[in-house]
Amino acid sequence: MDLVAIEEIKRLKHRYLRTLDLKRWDEFADCLEPDCQAEYGERLSFSGRDDIVAYMRKSLGPELITMHHCHHPEIDIDPGGHGASGTWALEDKVILWKDRLMITGATFYEDRYRRDASGAWRIARTGYVRLFEAMQPLPEGFRLTANRWADT
Amino acid sequence: MDLVAIEEIKRLKHRYLRTLDLKRWDEFADCLEPDCQAEYGERLSFSGRDDIVAYMRKSLGPELITMHHCHHPEIDIDPGGHGASGTWALEDKVILWKDRLMITGATFYEDRYRRDASGAWRIARTGYVRLFEAMQPLPEGFRLTANRWADT
Amino acid sequence: MDLVAIEEIKRLKHRYLRTLDLKRWDEFADCLEPDCQAEYGERLSFSGRDDIVAYMRKSLGPELITMHHCHHPEIDIDPGGHGASGTWALEDKVILWKDRLMITGATFYEDRYRRDASGAWRIARTGYVRLFEAMQPLPEGFRLTANRWADT
Repeated sequence: MDLVAIEEIKRLKHRYLRTLDLKRWDEFADCLEPDCQAEYGERLSFSGRDDIVAYMRKSLGPELITMHHCHHPEIDIDPGGHGASGTWALEDKVILWKDRLMITGATFYEDRYRRDASGAWRIARTGYVRLFEAMQPLPEGFRLTANRWADT
Repeated sequence: MDLVAIEEIKRLKHRYLRTLDLKRWDEFADCLEPDCQAEYGERLSFSGRDDIVAYMRKSLGPELITMHHCHHPEIDIDPGGHGASGTWALEDKVILWKDRLMITGATFYEDRYRRDASGAWRIARTGYVRLFEAMQPLPEGFRLTANRWADT
Repeated sequence: MDLVAIEEIKRLKHRYLRTLDLKRWDEFADCLEPDCQAEYGERLSFSGRDDIVAYMRKSLGPELITMHHCHHPEIDIDPGGHGASGTWALEDKVILWKDRLMITGATFYEDRYRRDASGAWRIARTGYVRLFEAMQPLPEGFRLTANRWADT
């Protein structure tokens, strides 16, 4: 079992999720292969890193607080060590604080990873079929006491 | 520190949780020792894999969306390497979407694991005392926009 | 990559979070360096382990159920191996069950760790800038069906 490669891939996914929720799009882009395929549920499919990043940059502005947490990695390195597969459990929450709506959900990611000549791993394919997703108005009396995007 | 055994046990627990929430009962059963003991809070105790799996199969049908996420593994391999102990933090959410109820909770698992002659780890004992568990009607205006079990 | 040190630091953080939510203040204290600096958002700063522990002991009594879950570790061991840096994603929930209020939030921790002469890691600095924090009354019909602190 190549524990170093497994830890590197976990870090890659963690960086992808951290830069997503912090809206750091250049660092986010660097987690993806140029030809990355993404299928986020039934309604959102992308072909290529540029498409994915352009969509995120446009759709996840400061009017949305997003929280994407991934758990339960099960990662298999391919024989040869140049590729890998992984599954993760996702829990996500999106607070549309200006519209006073909240989206919550959970699912399982199925990913493919690729290692370049320098040894760096990137996401080559990512996607999920939803376990559930729900929308609701923010609860009665729900009040943000901190919001990193409030002044932006 | 036997990092390979630790990673194997994390994967075992992740597979147990993934197959639980995806209702894949045969794969779920394979995560458990035949004589597995389980104590899920004060009200749910089982003796033996068959009892555990029969209960889950019967109780967690498509009218329930379940999400069980475990965090914070602290795993100790026994001297000799044939057994291990582990603690995990759990957060769970159950959406009874037909009854419009939701159960949420959190706790800490205390597990025992055993390795068979072929090297495979399985859960020999699992259980927790609840930190909290709460029931509530689904919030006003809560609407599922995706549900893997809707048509089943 | 020093995988043993990385696993030790993950365990340290997991123990810190477990003892925090179980209100085991002596074990919690042992996760911290004597001169530990902590900055939990804008409003809560502490200098020294004694200050941190005294505040937690006083503020997080049995009238509060707390759940602090950390995800997405990205840990770098310093050259030489006596210190380390780490980032983590946090999701927290506090149920003030007597006051029927709930606080939820998420953020990213930035930590520093130090290893003592015996090889044990402790937290030397910890803190975050909030992604979000929100307060709300407990939802209509929210009923605790288990509460570890109910009788204390």
